[in-house]
Amino acid sequence: MAPHTKTTARIRHDEHCARWDVFEIELDGPSHGNPFTDVDLGATFSDGRREQRAGGFYDGDGKYLIRFMPDAEGPWTFVTSSTARSLDGIAGRFLAGPAAPEHHGPVRVADRHHFAYADGTRYLPIGTTAYAWTHQVERLRAATRRTLASSYFNKIRMCLLPKSYAYNTDEPELYPFPGSPTDSWDTTRFDPRFFRRFEDEVRALRELGIEADVILFHPYDRWGFAELGREADDRLTRYAVRRLSALSNVWWSMANEYDLVRAKTEADWERLAGIVAEEDPFGHLASIHNCFSFYDHTTPWITHCSIQRVDVYRTAENTDTWRELWGKPVVIDECGYEGDIDQGWGNLTSEELVRRCWEGAVRGGYVQHGETYLNDAEELWWSKGGRLTGTSPERIAFLHGVIRDSPTGVLDPLPSDWDAPRGGIQGTYEVIYFGLSRPRFRNISVPADERFAIDVIDTWAMTVDRVGITTGSSVRVELPGRPYMAVRLSRLPDQTEAGTHASVLT
Amino acid sequence: MAPHTKTTARIRHDEHCARWDVFEIELDGPSHGNPFTDVDLGATFSDGRREQRAGGFYDGDGKYLIRFMPDAEGPWTFVTSSTARSLDGIAGRFLAGPAAPEHHGPVRVADRHHFAYADGTRYLPIGTTAYAWTHQVERLRAATRRTLASSYFNKIRMCLLPKSYAYNTDEPELYPFPGSPTDSWDTTRFDPRFFRRFEDEVRALRELGIEADVILFHPYDRWGFAELGREADDRLTRYAVRRLSALSNVWWSMANEYDLVRAKTEADWERLAGIVAEEDPFGHLASIHNCFSFYDHTTPWITHCSIQRVDVYRTAENTDTWRELWGKPVVIDECGYEGDIDQGWGNLTSEELVRRCWEGAVRGGYVQHGETYLNDAEELWWSKGGRLTGTSPERIAFLHGVIRDSPTGVLDPLPSDWDAPRGGIQGTYEVIYFGLSRPRFRNISVPADERFAIDVIDTWAMTVDRVGITTGSSVRVELPGRPYMAVRLSRLPDQTEAGTHASVLT
Repeated sequence: MAPHTKTTARIRHDEHCARWDVFEIELDGPSHGNPFTDVDLGATFSDGRREQRAGGFYDGDGKYLIRFMPDAEGPWTFVTSSTARSLDGIAGRFLAGPAAPEHHGPVRVADRHHFAYADGTRYLPIGTTAYAWTHQVERLRAATRRTLASSYFNKIRMCLLPKSYAYNTDEPELYPFPGSPTDSWDTTRFDPRFFRRFEDEVRALRELGIEADVILFHPYDRWGFAELGREADDRLTRYAVRRLSALSNVWWSMANEYDLVRAKTEADWERLAGIVAEEDPFGHLASIHNCFSFYDHTTPWITHCSIQRVDVYRTAENTDTWRELWGKPVVIDECGYEGDIDQGWGNLTSEELVRRCWEGAVRGGYVQHGETYLNDAEELWWSKGGRLTGTSPERIAFLHGVIRDSPTGVLDPLPSDWDAPRGGIQGTYEVIYFGLSRPRFRNISVPADERFAIDVIDTWAMTVDRVGITTGSSVRVELPGRPYMAVRLSRLPDQTEAGTHASVLT
Repeated sequence: MAPHTKTTARIRHDEHCARWDVFEIELDGPSHGNPFTDVDLGATFSDGRREQRAGGFYDGDGKYLIRFMPDAEGPWTFVTSSTARSLDGIAGRFLAGPAAPEHHGPVRVADRHHFAYADGTRYLPIGTTAYAWTHQVERLRAATRRTLASSYFNKIRMCLLPKSYAYNTDEPELYPFPGSPTDSWDTTRFDPRFFRRFEDEVRALRELGIEADVILFHPYDRWGFAELGREADDRLTRYAVRRLSALSNVWWSMANEYDLVRAKTEADWERLAGIVAEEDPFGHLASIHNCFSFYDHTTPWITHCSIQRVDVYRTAENTDTWRELWGKPVVIDECGYEGDIDQGWGNLTSEELVRRCWEGAVRGGYVQHGETYLNDAEELWWSKGGRLTGTSPERIAFLHGVIRDSPTGVLDPLPSDWDAPRGGIQGTYEVIYFGLSRPRFRNISVPADERFAIDVIDTWAMTVDRVGITTGSSVRVELPGRPYMAVRLSRLPDQTEAGTHASVLT
């Protein structure tokens, strides 16, 4: 425990914190009245070069917390400020050490249309969705954690607030506010247990190397949480962001299907996004997800496009257009889910979901996973989490191996034939995807004056066959006459022999 | 032979002709100079109520022909007119008898978005494409005829002029003009053998009950036939239409991929369409087929929309929109072909082509067949005809059985869920198609206050299972969790017992 001079409040914090980990200050303070609204609190942190202000929050039982994510190694100092005299002006210090080897900091936009961790390590979103998983019982939450731990996913979309929707009608154990569904809610207070559970799960994800795309608002509601009114919305947003923003793996999704949240206008979303920006000193990624019509993705606070399907069949095919239109990364969070439920968004074959992932990938974007297989327990992954039974995840991981093989670690759209999109790095690494087409051969244009290895990739069977080396401007590639094939051209160093530099796919 | 009084020219014709069959007048006339351009000829026909004028043409060797398709039974008279004195003013008569039982007359637009034969019999276009089949050797042409004779197809798209394109590079045996590919063409004359062969094949199709969608111009050319110039184009069009229009099964397609015929402008197409209208007294169906951009389908001479794919995946899904836009039948002649060639338009799986046919059908349109499987002989059906090896034709025929089961014999688009188009006759016969979706069940809204039989249709396996009778406003239908399923609701007469009126599919 660090010593301090003020006598007004007890303060506890660690003296060390890893870079991008959570540094937490705990203060004892007033518990009379309504501490959630009566007391404001925060601290200004400095590493001697910059100052950052983090808001604090009441965690119940007379305990106040301020959380901070140091983004640089070295000594940091802080001083609190508060409307409560006993919490004001308390100074302290800690030392930020190196990040744990597996921690790379928060994800940022990189190269305009892609992502990287703060330490520069490339990040490819391999996301899935389990909207209400944190609101399930521990048995299910543990199953979700186990599933994620053994999966390839490095991002999950999840709702802060409980969800009421088809296949998710159970009453949650905890609610954000004191009260009950049969009575009323005191929206001027929060139930810290609800938030602790949520942030424990976000922390668990962080340990698994998984980004938490936290959805702040959504329309799937029977408790009134989708129409709290402006003041309660603002309080909830501020409270949630102050609790969560020091977790490096948090992304902000202002809403799922914002346009179905009827009680909120664009002015509301802008105001709430302003609160997020104000209360998040770490600049986490932020987006807002549509149902029918896109939010204006040129809006400055939006870091990347979080997109829902725009057509029964054709969505991922728009990826390159949307990149150009908005100049931001395109993440298609809901392109339809692998499953077999009654709804058209939730009964894709694995083949079709994987196809959509490839269509988006070769156009320089990121189509995400979801799974909605009916089961007797009504535990559909997309909502409650639990177990995955589909066959698309390993194929999505295979796709990301092909992306990672690129010299830049990403694919960008390249000039393409009308029927076979090409992505990669022009003249160096080019991937041509054939989708539903099933040619028995294809004449493929090759960048001139270099040696290229030619691989035939079966994106469904997950095989890569090196079929030859070419130096010409066009090469005829024999193909098996099945859908879901790709051809990859990888530039070889001079004098490299065929076959000795086989591409590594993970 | 009918007697006549003029001594100037010998005339030969039959005294009888079946309704909608070809009545042909043969005249001996001048053979000096250039009879193709020096002599104009025609005849005015009358059944006592109406007059129709048919143009004649020079068939070589001093022989002139005038062809006519009587559209009514009873006595007809005619009198010729000509710029050649010896062919002018020759009168005659014949008796039109009943049509052969299997002949229903030319196909017309019916019910705004559909078709019927002239005798009112419903016609559903079940079309295929073999562009250059009439330009192949007899062995191949005979194979094509045999294939068609044993197929379900009742329409074929075929080019009048020889075709030069991938998989079709052989030199034809005959050309429309005297001359040679290595020398030059005399476009002021025609080679009647070329036209005789073509019309013999159209006649053979007629005997098979197959409509010939005759493509007058196209861009696939190495002989200069795509850029003959205005006068030769006009002569060719006039000559071809005069030769062919008395065949009841002819449709006019002004062009395939008109927008790739660079030498022609919209003014040219309008002028040529005007010649067709002028020279075709029988008002055959007429269209013009696009590559990249549609011709203005509101143009009066266009009877129906002949459409090519507008997207790699999504074309048939536009059918209902196009119906509304243009108020005409929508025939998607090229939505992609079942096959495995290198080109994206020619390597669809059978499943995908059949899916497109259904997507168009439930939206009230007609998606047509084509086949492009590679083979060693380079005899691809879509170009040369020959043999069919794919699996879509029987499934397309099955689809048409479902359409024919409708009380009106057609499907029109109905209000639909976003993910499952519904077509049919509202409140009577409704077909819901699930496409790539694979629900394990579906709650389906049912028109109220009537009894409906519910059939689950596997459009790929070609099975129809009657799963129940319902009277409610919604019914839960169990489905197998496979793609390509449909559900059909058929209104039952009062008091009909379940299962006793099982639908008949052919």
